[in-house]
Amino acid sequence: MSFSLAERDDTIIALATPQGVGAIAVIRLSGKNAISLTNQVFHGKNLEKQASHTIHFGTIRDGDRVIDEVLVSIFIAPKSFTKENVVEISTHGSSYIINQVIRLFIKLGARPAKPGEFTQRAFLHGQFDLAQAEAVADLIHADSEASHAAALNQMRGGFSSEIQELRAQLIHFASMIELELDFTEEDVEFASRDDLRVLVERLLRVVEELILSFDLGNVIKNGVPTVIAGKPNAGKSTLLNALLNEEKAIVSDIAGTTRDFIEDEINIGGVIFRFIDTAGLRETTDAIEKIGVSRTQEKMKTASLILYLFDLSDTDLIEINRDINKLENLGVPFLKVANKTDKAKENIISELTEKHPDTIFISAGKKENLDSLKARILELVNLDKFKTGNTVVTNIRHYDSLTKTRESLLDVLGGLDQEVTNDFLAMDIRRSLHFLGEITGEITTDDLLANIFSKFCIGK
Amino acid sequence: MSFSLAERDDTIIALATPQGVGAIAVIRLSGKNAISLTNQVFHGKNLEKQASHTIHFGTIRDGDRVIDEVLVSIFIAPKSFTKENVVEISTHGSSYIINQVIRLFIKLGARPAKPGEFTQRAFLHGQFDLAQAEAVADLIHADSEASHAAALNQMRGGFSSEIQELRAQLIHFASMIELELDFTEEDVEFASRDDLRVLVERLLRVVEELILSFDLGNVIKNGVPTVIAGKPNAGKSTLLNALLNEEKAIVSDIAGTTRDFIEDEINIGGVIFRFIDTAGLRETTDAIEKIGVSRTQEKMKTASLILYLFDLSDTDLIEINRDINKLENLGVPFLKVANKTDKAKENIISELTEKHPDTIFISAGKKENLDSLKARILELVNLDKFKTGNTVVTNIRHYDSLTKTRESLLDVLGGLDQEVTNDFLAMDIRRSLHFLGEITGEITTDDLLANIFSKFCIGK
Repeated sequence: MSFSLAERDDTIIALATPQGVGAIAVIRLSGKNAISLTNQVFHGKNLEKQASHTIHFGTIRDGDRVIDEVLVSIFIAPKSFTKENVVEISTHGSSYIINQVIRLFIKLGARPAKPGEFTQRAFLHGQFDLAQAEAVADLIHADSEASHAAALNQMRGGFSSEIQELRAQLIHFASMIELELDFTEEDVEFASRDDLRVLVERLLRVVEELILSFDLGNVIKNGVPTVIAGKPNAGKSTLLNALLNEEKAIVSDIAGTTRDFIEDEINIGGVIFRFIDTAGLRETTDAIEKIGVSRTQEKMKTASLILYLFDLSDTDLIEINRDINKLENLGVPFLKVANKTDKAKENIISELTEKHPDTIFISAGKKENLDSLKARILELVNLDKFKTGNTVVTNIRHYDSLTKTRESLLDVLGGLDQEVTNDFLAMDIRRSLHFLGEITGEITTDDLLANIFSKFCIGK
Repeated sequence: MSFSLAERDDTIIALATPQGVGAIAVIRLSGKNAISLTNQVFHGKNLEKQASHTIHFGTIRDGDRVIDEVLVSIFIAPKSFTKENVVEISTHGSSYIINQVIRLFIKLGARPAKPGEFTQRAFLHGQFDLAQAEAVADLIHADSEASHAAALNQMRGGFSSEIQELRAQLIHFASMIELELDFTEEDVEFASRDDLRVLVERLLRVVEELILSFDLGNVIKNGVPTVIAGKPNAGKSTLLNALLNEEKAIVSDIAGTTRDFIEDEINIGGVIFRFIDTAGLRETTDAIEKIGVSRTQEKMKTASLILYLFDLSDTDLIEINRDINKLENLGVPFLKVANKTDKAKENIISELTEKHPDTIFISAGKKENLDSLKARILELVNLDKFKTGNTVVTNIRHYDSLTKTRESLLDVLGGLDQEVTNDFLAMDIRRSLHFLGEITGEITTDDLLANIFSKFCIGK
């Protein structure tokens, strides 16, 4: 998919609200003729004489036939989402009506919008940069406090301004060095090599920090991969269901705002934890026993967190010590969770408290002490960076560009060490600028844009 | 569910667009404090100082935390759907954001709206009458041109004005007769008994016509119950799929407006035909053979239309004549549909054309001549009344009230015949008025209202 210049002048139309039966539906038009086209089929008043940001009641008609009574919102360029003329038609929420209205506008010359085309137009008209545009899609799909906060921060330009600042500093140096190229015979030095080294090293630190934040960004966006490891009777399913049901109970108390629950995703303190099923581990298999088996071991290593769950009524300290030893060798952060406190064998609790004072004692069946477990889970996932409002990279495209930026910056440093000529130095700096510019869209190709926006939903 | 007076003063809130991921979601508030509550959490400008029917960009915040960038539409009482202050908040279409915004408003004192509560408030404040309010729900669920036209006509007051006109005329007579009651000793006659009889007979004709229209209204709303009857190899499934796929092809050509298809509902020329499966008839059973079996016969009698389908390659005229004879005895309108024209036995087509000139020859497999079949199907369903824009009763509650009105009007006529006293006559007229008034909501009870509006979706 790529957009020709002619296509960019079209007036586009799409349903902006979800499919399905609801009280109302909103159909969105954008383009030079959005208001005049609507005026041709709207009866009530002359829409072309109305002020921006006003709402008008009337009917949409196909000839004499009334399709619906509607509210029409008018946004006059450039004071709109796309910076073009925009009309939002609020109809009754019937798929029949939606179809009829969209067909009518297509007959008049509007074109069905491609996925993300409204946001793409907003980007092309400078409403926001590429990273902000991408955050719009992330925001729509955000399903937890953490992912929502990261997307909103990015949409509001937090990430972009950080990247742009880095880029501005590099551009300054690049222009100085390219200036030197014009005066090569005079052996002047407009840009101090020492200052450049200091700047590049500082940029590298920032870029590396952003790259590191991607691990956190990824778990914020996609959930923290978590494994509950334990013997078949340890109570793994009971614990998972107890955590899941608590979340359901919290969320489903507002009528009309039910959410879809994904079986293995649990929201703890605003962070999604995604429980991985390591070869039926949640159900019947003893994953701890199988840590030696390479496939299970590899799967468990992909987790960011392991809950080691054991049954106080049938596990002894020797077995626990052996399991803990295996888990420590695995190198994944884990919590020691002792289940069935109400049925514990004699002395096991006191022995455990002495040997492993960080054990968390719960009863999954009776839902006892789950709050401490949740608090400890949150402690283990380092969210300080997120909480302090620092920028977090959540997008793999940005991660790739940052990684390439780092390589180019390292080349610049290498070049400085080897005292390469200015033209080589300038080339490496320009490459860094290119990769940084890809993130915010200062550097784009049609293919890149098409690829990004095709992942959006239609109507956005 | 019933609404106390205090509840009617609450500011209510609900999601007005469907659940699910979309570009935008609209959250609707209605009530005295709708604008002032929104102003407490909206950052951008002072919403309480804005004109009605204006749109404002800003952020919704919970304390310092930004929940979303939104557009807020302001409607100041009484210029709104409910005739109360109304705010529509257009957010990014994320279930997380929707939840957060609704929770925030509930914390501020708004209450989650009950199903249909916005429309109920519109009714209570005289925005429209009850029949119109009910049409709003019908309109949202309308899935064909015919059901859409009927609902829209009713919502725009077509049905209501007809009922109100009847009622106004009766009220005039009722008041005359009740006036006579005050002067019984003087033996005056303000209301001519002959004029009353003429009026009641005219009313009866109108009411009966409306009652008769319910059959049509019912098929418009719920689909024409249709049976394809034929032997197992006649091509019933092939025909059904051919009709269904044609419809899908027509509808699915606009991106982003796909519709859910119900397996056995087909839209032909704007009318829904609902294909009944009479005991597996569509698949394997020979329904014609079983017409003698009472259960199959009863099921086939519930159809408004039977397509008698037979295979030209393996059916002879004797068999066809026998089947047609059975169908004629059944008393349901049917079409003779000869399938597999490309494989027809010798002479069968010419024989059929001579004996049954109304036979429709098709090839379901090759999709040949399906258009004539559809044209003939539409001919058989008498939609003239609908097409001429006459009022059609689609609601079973209205049908019940009209039936009771008819009984009371017949009582009035009977009373006139028997020259009953004025007080009996007045009572019967008042009963007629009562039942007519139930339709438009001039006569209501809390239970009736609760029952009607509880069937609405939340947010409407």
